[in-house]
Formats: sequence, structure tokens, C-alpha cells
Amino acid sequence: MSLERIKYESFKNLVVSAEETAQFFKNGMTVGSSGFTRGGDSKVVLKALAERAKNEDLKITLLTGASLGHGTDAALSESNALTKRLPFQVDNVLRKAINQGEVLFIDQHLSESSEQIMDGIWNLDIGILEVSEILEDGSLVFTTSIGNNVAIAEYADKLILEINTAIPKNIKGLHDIVSVPKYPNRKPIEILKADDRIGTESLKIDPSKVIAIVFHDIEDAPGDIQPADEATTAIANNIIKFFENEVAQGKLTKSLMPLQCGIGKVANAVLDGLQNSDFEDLVMYSEVLQDSTFNLIDSGKMNFASACSMTLSQACYDRVIANLDHYKSKIMLRPQNISNSVEVIRRLGIIGINTSLECDIYGNVNSTHVLGKNMMNGIGGSGDFARNAYISIFVTAATAKNGNISSIVPMVSHHDHTEHDVDVIVTDQGVADLRGLAPRERALVIINNCAHPDYRADLLDYYNRAAGFGGHTPHILSEAFSFHQRLSETGSMKKQLATTVS
Amino acid sequence: MSLERIKYESFKNLVVSAEETAQFFKNGMTVGSSGFTRGGDSKVVLKALAERAKNEDLKITLLTGASLGHGTDAALSESNALTKRLPFQVDNVLRKAINQGEVLFIDQHLSESSEQIMDGIWNLDIGILEVSEILEDGSLVFTTSIGNNVAIAEYADKLILEINTAIPKNIKGLHDIVSVPKYPNRKPIEILKADDRIGTESLKIDPSKVIAIVFHDIEDAPGDIQPADEATTAIANNIIKFFENEVAQGKLTKSLMPLQCGIGKVANAVLDGLQNSDFEDLVMYSEVLQDSTFNLIDSGKMNFASACSMTLSQACYDRVIANLDHYKSKIMLRPQNISNSVEVIRRLGIIGINTSLECDIYGNVNSTHVLGKNMMNGIGGSGDFARNAYISIFVTAATAKNGNISSIVPMVSHHDHTEHDVDVIVTDQGVADLRGLAPRERALVIINNCAHPDYRADLLDYYNRAAGFGGHTPHILSEAFSFHQRLSETGSMKKQLATTVS
Repeated sequence: MSLERIKYESFKNLVVSAEETAQFFKNGMTVGSSGFTRGGDSKVVLKALAERAKNEDLKITLLTGASLGHGTDAALSESNALTKRLPFQVDNVLRKAINQGEVLFIDQHLSESSEQIMDGIWNLDIGILEVSEILEDGSLVFTTSIGNNVAIAEYADKLILEINTAIPKNIKGLHDIVSVPKYPNRKPIEILKADDRIGTESLKIDPSKVIAIVFHDIEDAPGDIQPADEATTAIANNIIKFFENEVAQGKLTKSLMPLQCGIGKVANAVLDGLQNSDFEDLVMYSEVLQDSTFNLIDSGKMNFASACSMTLSQACYDRVIANLDHYKSKIMLRPQNISNSVEVIRRLGIIGINTSLECDIYGNVNSTHVLGKNMMNGIGGSGDFARNAYISIFVTAATAKNGNISSIVPMVSHHDHTEHDVDVIVTDQGVADLRGLAPRERALVIINNCAHPDYRADLLDYYNRAAGFGGHTPHILSEAFSFHQRLSETGSMKKQLATTVS
Repeated sequence: MSLERIKYESFKNLVVSAEETAQFFKNGMTVGSSGFTRGGDSKVVLKALAERAKNEDLKITLLTGASLGHGTDAALSESNALTKRLPFQVDNVLRKAINQGEVLFIDQHLSESSEQIMDGIWNLDIGILEVSEILEDGSLVFTTSIGNNVAIAEYADKLILEINTAIPKNIKGLHDIVSVPKYPNRKPIEILKADDRIGTESLKIDPSKVIAIVFHDIEDAPGDIQPADEATTAIANNIIKFFENEVAQGKLTKSLMPLQCGIGKVANAVLDGLQNSDFEDLVMYSEVLQDSTFNLIDSGKMNFASACSMTLSQACYDRVIANLDHYKSKIMLRPQNISNSVEVIRRLGIIGINTSLECDIYGNVNSTHVLGKNMMNGIGGSGDFARNAYISIFVTAATAKNGNISSIVPMVSHHDHTEHDVDVIVTDQGVADLRGLAPRERALVIINNCAHPDYRADLLDYYNRAAGFGGHTPHILSEAFSFHQRLSETGSMKKQLATTVS
């Protein structure tokens, strides 16, 4: 416990243990917490709440930035502490509870949660914020994410602060804290380049809201970066080729446009692919900084990266935390309504690269629901970027589950992104550039370029028969989910050879 | 022909007949034209092109602001002059050709067409612009819409101007002409209130692009305003009650927020409903000004209305045209990438009211496709507003076709707006306020409040059985389109009583 991290005198007598903070929560409360893709999340207070909920009826609605680390969502879920959860999650235990209808989940564009806090859809009883330090004026220095911290601090009735002493104090200066006012007092968000700083290094708060301060020294849970496999590498190569082709046509320069990448192995593979390319002076305006971002920065390929959080392997985390002064001129963290601001995204002209579970032959994308009903993680910020990007790219391996699932289907079983918001689809099989194409043209390009050869004939058969019945977007509704139904019934989307039993 | 409307001397010798302009078009060209919901459209050049195409192979791709009047799309369609058409249409003949696959249609967010022109997706060979006057500096004064005129004028290789002498010259001053630069030179769009003027009254162009000027005196085709019926009136009353309730809760004031309304009888009924309400000092930031807008302005209920075009009944059109000097301080027309700017929409905090063909029990909306395949009109600007609005409302009568179609279905057969972008659904039956609700909660509110009683039991039965199988968004894929299939097979979505033939 380093009281020197509390420079605001009257806060010093608010220090309590994590266990003690659990007593502030009441059944039925709505709680806001820091945390975005495992960065800067509540590490002890929510855990203490989960512990207390094991023994009594204590259920809350929990709104965070995005996903949490350290099994916190699992712990809350296992002790039945969650009535409702938003706007994103990636936890196995919580996912199961959501899909069983035990926890109500709201899957939300990540730019919108703070809007709903401001609009009074959520009245936060308590906000929990991880900070590295409290300055002389009572203002807060955040850690490895900002998420919805600004809105939570401004609108929650009470605040509990977690001071993380594992974060060096020289993280100060990494953040660009911006408060978006309520209607009708909004002004333009004056970011004209990814590295424009428009805010402050710390967030001023109403000190009377702070009811408790807890110390801990727990690092962020490391991201599990899966190594690139054959399909991922092929996708990355296809994207690089697409970019090279755009440059050859004079549509892009060698520095491309500001990049946004979803998280996971495909995104990492794409960014790693840029490492060995001719592209240079890259910039990123994205949600999350991953290992690959820092690799590009270290190799001199990328000049600057703006995001809302960082989610890193342990090795990369150690490297970044040990060299914050160096990286501070290369990266910046912002609130998620700024990192995902539709205004800024459309102004900067971003290349957005996001992942889909499945795409259909007309270019609609399902990012979230297995077989149309079971939630995986959530839409996250993909919609904020896909709708407003200069080029909106969706990537997926053409097949999954040993080839038994085709990621290209007649109709997606859940729609997160409609054909209007999908410019390019890339699989390990190839690239479908949909810009300027009508649905009937899209179908042929997607099937021929992106579907796995094992499924092309079936998809073409569906399309051709549907088109025979007419329609702007030809479909046979009774067969639109035939791939999914076959998967449910036989374990594979492939047509079975007829077996004759005589 | 009033040459005094051409104040730029060197243009005076470019005046030709409409028939002569047809000779500028070549087979395979891409053509941009003014025109947005029948306002300010090309009235003679495209018709001349259609006439010429009757006798020879002359097919073009046609990009406009939105829909055209005077049967121009029908004429082009009938003479096989269209290869591709975007971004919106409302024409019966063209619609049929689109749904038969004879014309390729691209259904596009209306804020995005100009982006695609700037990005080089469309290289416009010729642009056709209706103007009221050409000023001394060669700049253009537009008429009753702006649409994509700015991008067309800036990026088309050649321009043909239609001077409409039926439009009084004092229309000058009605327009706010803004040119959005290409990436990476974009700056904030500095509209902080609906009535902020940020541009010029006329558009400067490269005079060397102008190849021909045609005169005509044809008024805009009048909009066919259908009178409110019982269902429309009930929807309007339900919306007014919803607003009153928001005011009672302190979430809205009596001047509401800037309003956006789709076109048609529901929108007109809602705005007419405000006429007899306690709401006051209303403003509009929308796409289209309709009769109801001017009624609200005339009665003093509405202070200002910004849009991209006007589509009016003949009587209202006559009233507006005769009193332009009066209305100029109350209304403003802007390019559609400004009227539909996501940046401005999210900044102003708009209440968006748009029409759906069908909604599903989770709040997804189909605005465009009958039975999932046949295009009606297009998504228009509804997505620009719904995604970024303060409150995004979708309206529909609970049933259609004498009760044989339920507008609330288990799963929409086409997705234009996903659950993420739909805050409130209003039918003649009631209001489903979906803000803060998870899918399982949404289903019950939508079925109970918005579905017609004739369909509630069937919808509840579907939902309950689906929920029994689990899932974040419970569905039974084999039955998701059962309502639609029943309609196709029996002419009604209602379950038929079993008929026993013995």
C-alpha cells in the first residue's frame, strides 16, 4: 500500500480492504466498472462482491467497457450475482449462463453504452474504476484502458477506486481524457489525425462521490494470443494482396489509411503480415492495441496507434510497461466513445478489419450468434467501424470444425452487419470485393472467391434456383437455413451421400 | 427560354434542346443525376435519353440522390436504358425490372453514395443537374433538392444543366452548399444546431465541364399524400403519448429533440399529430420536407426545418413556391451527405421516426424486402438516422392485407436494421420501448404491446418453445420463417383451422 499514490489528502482515510467494499453493494443495484478486453479492469472489488454473493441474494446489473480478465465474469456468474450484463463479454461460464437465459445480456455497439448512461437508461449506483494514481486536485490517472470510465465517473452516484500499484506512475500522459457533453451541448470532436490530443491526462471528478479506495498490485490478465495457422496466414496474405492491388490502382498509398483491427489471431496475423510488406508510416485508430501493434511500432513500420485499451501477451505487456516513457509518444488511449466515435471514424477514413462467424452469399455478416441463437462474445465495436469505415473488411476462415461448417452460407442465421456495411470479405480462399456490386453480382463473387470448394456447388445451386424464382435478393425461405439445419441434424453442413439400407 | 438565367456569359452558347443532349450519352456510361424524392430531378435530359434508348442499345448506370418523379425511372426501365441503378427508387416499373433481375439495383445508405463517388467506386461520365440559375461566377443555384449534386458536380467528367424556369429565382438563399473534402483532408462538419449555416448559397464548378444547357419549366411531380387511416392515426397517437411520457419523466422537454421523419402517410400523420399537441418550438433535421412540415411551421409549432429535399402535394408546393422569401428563414436544404451526416445526427441527438415493413420479436427491422427477396423502395437514409439517433423509432401497422399479414414476425425475412439500432417500435396496437432490454425481454414486450391480438398467441408459442431450447436470442431455425411460408402457401399468416376430409 503506497499512500503516496493518493495525492488528494482527504481521500487517504477512505482506504479499506477489498472485502470491506463488498458491503457497499445492495441487491438490485446497477454497477459500472472499468475494464476493456482485460485491460484496466476491476480486479478485487467485483471479486469481493462475487464472494459475498455466494452466501446471500445479491444480484446486480453490470456495465463495463468491454470484457474483463481474471475470471471475474465467471466468478460473478457462478455466485449468481448478475441479473443483467452489458455491453460485451468473452467468458465461458458467463456465456453459458447467458445462453441458458440465466443472465440477461445486452449486446451493444461499444460507442453507445456511454450514450445510454448519459440518457438515463442506466442509473449507476456505484462505479468502480482502476486507477494508477490520484493527483493533487483529486483527478484520476487511469491504467491500461479507459473504456466507459469517463461516463461512469461522471454519472455514477458513488465511486470506488482501485489503485493498481503494479502500474508504474509514468503511465500518466498515455491517456487522452475527453468528456462528451449531454445533448444539446455537443460540439465537434476535433480529432483530425489519429495522434491529435484533444483532452487531458487525468479525469477531474466530484470528490464527494468517492466512498472507498482499495489498493492492489495485480497485473492485467494476459491475452491468449493463438499462433497463426494455415488459414489465418492465408487470410492475412489475401488482405495484403488486396492492399497492394489498391495501391497499384492508385486508390491507397503505401501508408494505407488509419487501421482498425478486431482482436484475435486473424487480426494479429494481418498486422504481422504488414511487418514483411512494403507498407510504411502506418497509423492505427482502433479499439485495442495488441502485440502486433507494438511489433509494428518497434520495427518502425507504424508511426502511431490510438485505441481504448491494450490486451497483450505477458511478454509484450512486460515490455510495454517497462518502457512506457518510450511508447507514450507512439500510442494513446481514449474513452471508447472517442476511439469508436462514428464522427471520427468517418472523418479519418479508416480501413476496418473485423471478424465474422459466418457471411452469407449477399454479404450479410453474423459476428455473434452460433446457429442464430447462442451468443459467443458480442458485436463489440465492429459495427461502429464497419458502418463508417472507408473500407470495411470482414474476415473468416472459409470453413470451421474440420470442414464441417462452411462460413459462407445461403443466409446468415443472425445479422450483425448488413450488406450495406460490408465492402470486402476475405477468407483463406480469396477476396470478394463487393463495392459497387448489386446482390446478384455479390452472390457469385462471394461463392466463387470466398467459399471453400467443398461448398461452392451447393451454394451455387441454392443461388441459381432462388434466382430462378426472381427477386432483388433471391432467396428460398424454406431452404435459407438448410446448411444450419443439416449441421444440427448430421454434424456437418455437407450433404451426405445417400446410404441405402435394403 | 430566359437567357437572363445564365449570368455566366460563355455558357449562353451551350443552350441546346433536350433531344440534342441525348447524343452525349454512350452505351456503358455511368451517369449521375440530381433528384431526391421527386424534388429537383432531371426532367427532360433523362427522358430524352430514354427516348433514344428505345431505338438503340444504350444502357447506363444511373446514380441519383434518391427517387425521381414524372415516371423517369419507368421510362428508362421500359426502354432498357438501365444496367444498374442506385441508391434508391420508388417506381413500379423499375421495381418490377429490379425484382426480375433485369436491372441491377444497389440499395445504399443515402449518406454513402457521395463517399463512393469520391472514392472512385463510380466514375461519372456525365452529371445532370437541375438548377434555377447560373450566377455571374458560373456557380449553380439549385432548386427543390440538393441530393448528391455537389459530388456529382465535382467528380463527373462532364455536366449537363437543366434550367428550370418554373422555379422562382428567389429560391437563391434556401440552400446551404457544403463540399466535403476527400480523405485525409476532412474537418468537422460544424453544424451545432439544425439552423446553423455552414456553406454557400450556390455551388462553384469547373465551367469547362459544362457541355450543354437545357431549359424547361416543368414543376416537380407532386407527392401522393395518402390521408391518414385508422391505423396511421393510432400509430401517431401512440407516438405522441410516448413523447408525453418521456416529458413527464423529464427525459424530453416540450420542444423534444430535432425530428427526422421518413416519408409517407405515417410520418405525415405523426407530424400532423404534433399540430394538436402541447409540444412547441420544434425543429427538424431530416431528409425530406413534407406537407406536414410546412403545416407545423405555419402554425408556429415548428421553428426550423433542415433537409435535403422537399416532396409536397401540389397545393403545398404552390404555397411554398409562392412564398419562398417567407420560408427561407424557416427552412434550409443541404447535400444528402450533410442532411444524413452521421457526425451531425449523433451530435444533435435526433429523434428518428422511420417505417418498417416488418419487425421481429427481437427488434430487428425489415424496411425493404417483401418475403425476404422482392425490393420495395430501398433503405434510404433510415440507417443513417436509426444507428445514430438519440431515440430510434420504427413504426408500422400491426397488420397488412386485411389482417392476413402480421408485421410482427418470429424473424424478419430481410434485415435492414438490427436490434442494436432499434430503440422503440410503435404500431397501432401500442409501444414497445426496448431501451435497456435484453432479447428475451424484448420479445415479450414486442409481442404483448405491438403485435395484433390475432397473432399474439402464435408468436408467444414460437418464443416460448424457442426459449425452451435455450439461447441468448432463442430461435427455432426451421420455423423462423413459418409465418412467411404460411403466407406464401395460404395467402395468410394466420394458422388455418384444420379441415377434415373423410
